[in-house]
Amino acid sequence: MATDQVPPIADEIPTVQPESPAVERVEDDGVHADDSGYRQPSVDVPALRALLDGRHREVRDLVRANLAEHAQVLLDQEQMTTADFRERVKDVVVLMARTGQTGMGFPEEYGGGGDIGASIAAFETLAFGDLSVLVKVGVQFGLFGGAILQLGTRSHHDAYLADLVNGRTMGCFAMTESGHGSNVQALGTVATYDVETQEFVITTPDEASRKDYIGNAAAHAELAVVFAQLEVGGERHGVHAFVVPVRDGGRVVDGVRIEDCGPKMGLNGVDNGRIWFDAVRVPRTALLNQFAEVTPQGRYLSPIDNPHKRFFTMLGTLVQGRVCVGGAGINAAKVALTIATRYAERRRQFEATSPDEEQVLLDYGMHQRRLLPLLARTYALHFAQDVVSGQLHEVFSGPGPTEPGSDEHARRVLESRAAGTKALGTWHATRTIQECREACGGAGYLSENRFAALKADTDVFTTFEGDNHVLLQLVAKGLLTDYAGEFEDMDQLGMARFVAGLAVETVVERTAVHKLVQSVRDLLPSGDTWDQEAGLLDPNYQLAMLRFREEHMIGSVARRLKRGIDQGMNPGAVFSRVQDHVIAAARAHTERLVLEAFVAKVAELPDGDLKVTLNLLCDLHALTTIEADRAWFMEHGRLSSARSKAISREVNALCRKIRPLAVDLVDAFGVPEEMLRSPELLSWPVGSDG
Amino acid sequence: MATDQVPPIADEIPTVQPESPAVERVEDDGVHADDSGYRQPSVDVPALRALLDGRHREVRDLVRANLAEHAQVLLDQEQMTTADFRERVKDVVVLMARTGQTGMGFPEEYGGGGDIGASIAAFETLAFGDLSVLVKVGVQFGLFGGAILQLGTRSHHDAYLADLVNGRTMGCFAMTESGHGSNVQALGTVATYDVETQEFVITTPDEASRKDYIGNAAAHAELAVVFAQLEVGGERHGVHAFVVPVRDGGRVVDGVRIEDCGPKMGLNGVDNGRIWFDAVRVPRTALLNQFAEVTPQGRYLSPIDNPHKRFFTMLGTLVQGRVCVGGAGINAAKVALTIATRYAERRRQFEATSPDEEQVLLDYGMHQRRLLPLLARTYALHFAQDVVSGQLHEVFSGPGPTEPGSDEHARRVLESRAAGTKALGTWHATRTIQECREACGGAGYLSENRFAALKADTDVFTTFEGDNHVLLQLVAKGLLTDYAGEFEDMDQLGMARFVAGLAVETVVERTAVHKLVQSVRDLLPSGDTWDQEAGLLDPNYQLAMLRFREEHMIGSVARRLKRGIDQGMNPGAVFSRVQDHVIAAARAHTERLVLEAFVAKVAELPDGDLKVTLNLLCDLHALTTIEADRAWFMEHGRLSSARSKAISREVNALCRKIRPLAVDLVDAFGVPEEMLRSPELLSWPVGSDG
Repeated sequence: MATDQVPPIADEIPTVQPESPAVERVEDDGVHADDSGYRQPSVDVPALRALLDGRHREVRDLVRANLAEHAQVLLDQEQMTTADFRERVKDVVVLMARTGQTGMGFPEEYGGGGDIGASIAAFETLAFGDLSVLVKVGVQFGLFGGAILQLGTRSHHDAYLADLVNGRTMGCFAMTESGHGSNVQALGTVATYDVETQEFVITTPDEASRKDYIGNAAAHAELAVVFAQLEVGGERHGVHAFVVPVRDGGRVVDGVRIEDCGPKMGLNGVDNGRIWFDAVRVPRTALLNQFAEVTPQGRYLSPIDNPHKRFFTMLGTLVQGRVCVGGAGINAAKVALTIATRYAERRRQFEATSPDEEQVLLDYGMHQRRLLPLLARTYALHFAQDVVSGQLHEVFSGPGPTEPGSDEHARRVLESRAAGTKALGTWHATRTIQECREACGGAGYLSENRFAALKADTDVFTTFEGDNHVLLQLVAKGLLTDYAGEFEDMDQLGMARFVAGLAVETVVERTAVHKLVQSVRDLLPSGDTWDQEAGLLDPNYQLAMLRFREEHMIGSVARRLKRGIDQGMNPGAVFSRVQDHVIAAARAHTERLVLEAFVAKVAELPDGDLKVTLNLLCDLHALTTIEADRAWFMEHGRLSSARSKAISREVNALCRKIRPLAVDLVDAFGVPEEMLRSPELLSWPVGSDG
Repeated sequence: MATDQVPPIADEIPTVQPESPAVERVEDDGVHADDSGYRQPSVDVPALRALLDGRHREVRDLVRANLAEHAQVLLDQEQMTTADFRERVKDVVVLMARTGQTGMGFPEEYGGGGDIGASIAAFETLAFGDLSVLVKVGVQFGLFGGAILQLGTRSHHDAYLADLVNGRTMGCFAMTESGHGSNVQALGTVATYDVETQEFVITTPDEASRKDYIGNAAAHAELAVVFAQLEVGGERHGVHAFVVPVRDGGRVVDGVRIEDCGPKMGLNGVDNGRIWFDAVRVPRTALLNQFAEVTPQGRYLSPIDNPHKRFFTMLGTLVQGRVCVGGAGINAAKVALTIATRYAERRRQFEATSPDEEQVLLDYGMHQRRLLPLLARTYALHFAQDVVSGQLHEVFSGPGPTEPGSDEHARRVLESRAAGTKALGTWHATRTIQECREACGGAGYLSENRFAALKADTDVFTTFEGDNHVLLQLVAKGLLTDYAGEFEDMDQLGMARFVAGLAVETVVERTAVHKLVQSVRDLLPSGDTWDQEAGLLDPNYQLAMLRFREEHMIGSVARRLKRGIDQGMNPGAVFSRVQDHVIAAARAHTERLVLEAFVAKVAELPDGDLKVTLNLLCDLHALTTIEADRAWFMEHGRLSSARSKAISREVNALCRKIRPLAVDLVDAFGVPEEMLRSPELLSWPVGSDG
């Protein structure tokens, strides 16, 4: 447990007087013998797997088959030199591309699958395997290909898509600069239009503006989509994207300089590099002109007048990358949990219950506490991710952002949800992989047992495609401004000023959660004392708790921003001081969405063991989420200490109920056996001789 | 922040009515402009560094100089093959040994320094550099050398110490087996005494009993200290240690089989291996006979009759390893904090306070919240580690455990403290390195910026020299049994039965913390309402909170164990259900010791800026520790919600006060510049062009 917080524990004396049926169900205070009257469900693993795989089962199975076929790459990662491994990863990516796996999101006329949802599903599933392959696919087809598709128009599609979908042309996505990571709007590379030659001149003005950490740049990319400040006739129009050749037949072209970023913590099969441009000329048509055009005569045209809004609309079309990374993090966590859970069911340590035989790890209460809430949360995030990718599919299968019928509000909501889910999913991966590694002891440290690569490779997920804290600020902005049109036009200063200009009630009333909180009285019995009398296992109670927290936190942020600015403080300083609230509100919002997704999924299932099983997981997830922030709920009058302790007891009881199902629950993830490796952890008779 | 808990936040409305002077000091609700009336101290960096270095300043500076001289090894780690890097690490270890650095803990007559405290200080400081070098030193001089010194007698010392101190003879410590990690008493290797030849026959009876993860085994060790079940005349006497040659002139000797463990997550400069023994014969004198002897005629003799007690006494002499790993973890965290804090003072991101200039990261409230409590905790753990290593020096400079005047109670207390500090120190390292990596964004992912190696290399610290959870159980056993003589004679079953046999009051009254809690009334003004009226910044209040928690948790564990066993449950099953309480109590105990160490260190300083500065850090550490577990304090009636919110506000206010001192505070750690690397993070003009 990589935290110094003393883990929450249930108290020793069951002082809670049963107040309601649900509290009565919490009869187990941790030492009584059995949970009487409870019938253990059994898990139909194929059925559960089918449920998890959902409508994109076929493409997921295609990816599983591809992963198994190229399983050797997991060993190559350990054994090859970096240079060789990069070539190997590139080869695997191209071979996978030929099966159609990586092109699902592109139009069929260019050899793609024409199914955005399938493209996300394929990418998520790829996270069961070597993550350099995953990230190389993400760079080539998601970032590079996605930019051509979303920011370019027909001529660019005709010129590039078929070759890039097939893997014949490799490209990179040159956005980030050394001096500008999360704040892309401030980047320094310049593209100046030369009306004489009808060309753009791409220049790196200073060291801070060199492109940095660019995947595919150091070795393989022939083309780059370069983000640069567009300057036409001495006037700046903000960041735009240009297709720039950087290699020709493997040789770096004149005017371009590329440097290898060198060894990284992980993902060393991806060739990250730095790029400098020294007055590199590209034709006028190199501008990806979906949202802006420069005429031959040097007139700048765009259907979106406001440059901030234009910029965020452009970026918004690239949201798929965030959805993909979040899903990849969740699936990487599944690999770690599969190994650690199966190991915990086999490994014995210490004679705990019998002097003659050591006890299986998963029978230890602490071990259950370490692994099972993470398992439940993985299910929760899986279903939440399903919702995001479904929304993405809907939005991106519809009209583009500047076309008639475009639903701008739905796009903003999607971007917010993608940002929040990415942050929670990738933090969850970091935490789960670490806990699982520790739960496998020293053996977890050997590379053959997968944790080494999982940990090193996923580490950067929390900061790429947007630093998680920055993404949560984006979520909070959306909440505070109700995804207003003004939204894109706002930096932190603007946001603080905007909120300060509204009544706090207005801010809160405009939020989606407000209406949900209003309806608490209808769903739970006792008016304003709903929190005291509802059953702990009532999903309406669990949801009401998370909704209350979210609404309260949003109101609190708005009030503080307003007061600071009313007092004449610098809006930036106000923001800095309120920043922890801003991020907490965004987390609370996303946690609510995650729980809603899980509850909704369980509700739609027919009665039966599968529903009972997922209900246990959903309860465990909901109650550990409340338990983790029980201090806040107590501070805000929504949890008595007795009830708080009852929640901790219920979490322990749920862990004991889920424990016999644990291996089935990880098997249902369908991680191919070849991806688990860990021969000694999973099949060798360790510790059976105790 | 690798956790899904919503970070604690101060509330928006300052509902707290000032109840006492200290609460009045909490006038800052997060948006008011300034902390008026507060004079910022300035930090005398050399003076603070001298304080941190303490009485072993000289040896620390020797290590710093050695690290700087061999700084190239940090690059070699990235660039060399594993085989070459292992040789390189070995060479560096031998070169360092020649300076006397690694032999401080051995008697002077064998070329050592005769100063155990200096030996710990040297090891801790080595953690600023490449950690394969550190671990290789730990294996050779700590584990292998320590076993010869502590478990052997004069003849073994004469035979081996001079050569091993000098690095001429390399050895390994063959304890762990594949089937037995933390539960060493159950290991399977057998040493049978053959009275005819007066030899021991060492045998690996099955695959689960092969020695595993043994450092120095795969390539370099000539000798192994092998732990095996001693069998004499058909009778088993428990685990004993034997010196067994495993290589001769670099060739593995007959009857021994060694296999490489293969690539690991980190520490690839250390050659970990597996060892099998096929009836390997060693002379009778190969038994390290400090605590037991087999006569030529095959009589078994030991000054300690009880085999459990004998085993734990033997293990107890090896406690130094745990103290060293804990200190190494704390110092590795210092490296990460130095880089992240200096970077945060330079790097600008987003125009937060001014439209013309991006804001420095460390001026963001959230960034302060992420880094500064970790900085404060690093100081706290540093001083706590000082206490442990001082106690170790005292105990090990005195009579041995079977000699007259030996203080057995002091040894048990030391073992417990070492176990707890090791657990907290290594978890702190994992968490701090992760947070610092994320706080440096994508740049933190490049190997040249140190986090890659820090993270991968320290990861195993949480499970080696004892899994942290198992170590905390050891701490809890000590607490529950008051380090009784019976202590060593107890497994989990025995401990549960022992505690069940006592009145709960007896368990609690025997604890050291009980007397401290008793004295709360003397130190704090208002009898049983001390928690409501004391000042938040009063160290007596802070200590009283942690002591109350500890005592309450110990009583709770005792009560639950007792009730379960009284109800006729299997003691193991009772233990399993109470296990989270057991571990929480041990953490609470260790947290109390850590805070006490910090408070005592500050109290002994003369008035002045240094004291003011450390006081700020101590307050920040104390209040974030209480804040992290504020739910528990609320649940147990020791914190009102208003006061809980006041603590969160005070934490924010302390962060703002410490922020201007942050770089000085990390500079005082004295991490050699060569060990930081990170050229671009620390000296390149990133982000200054916003």
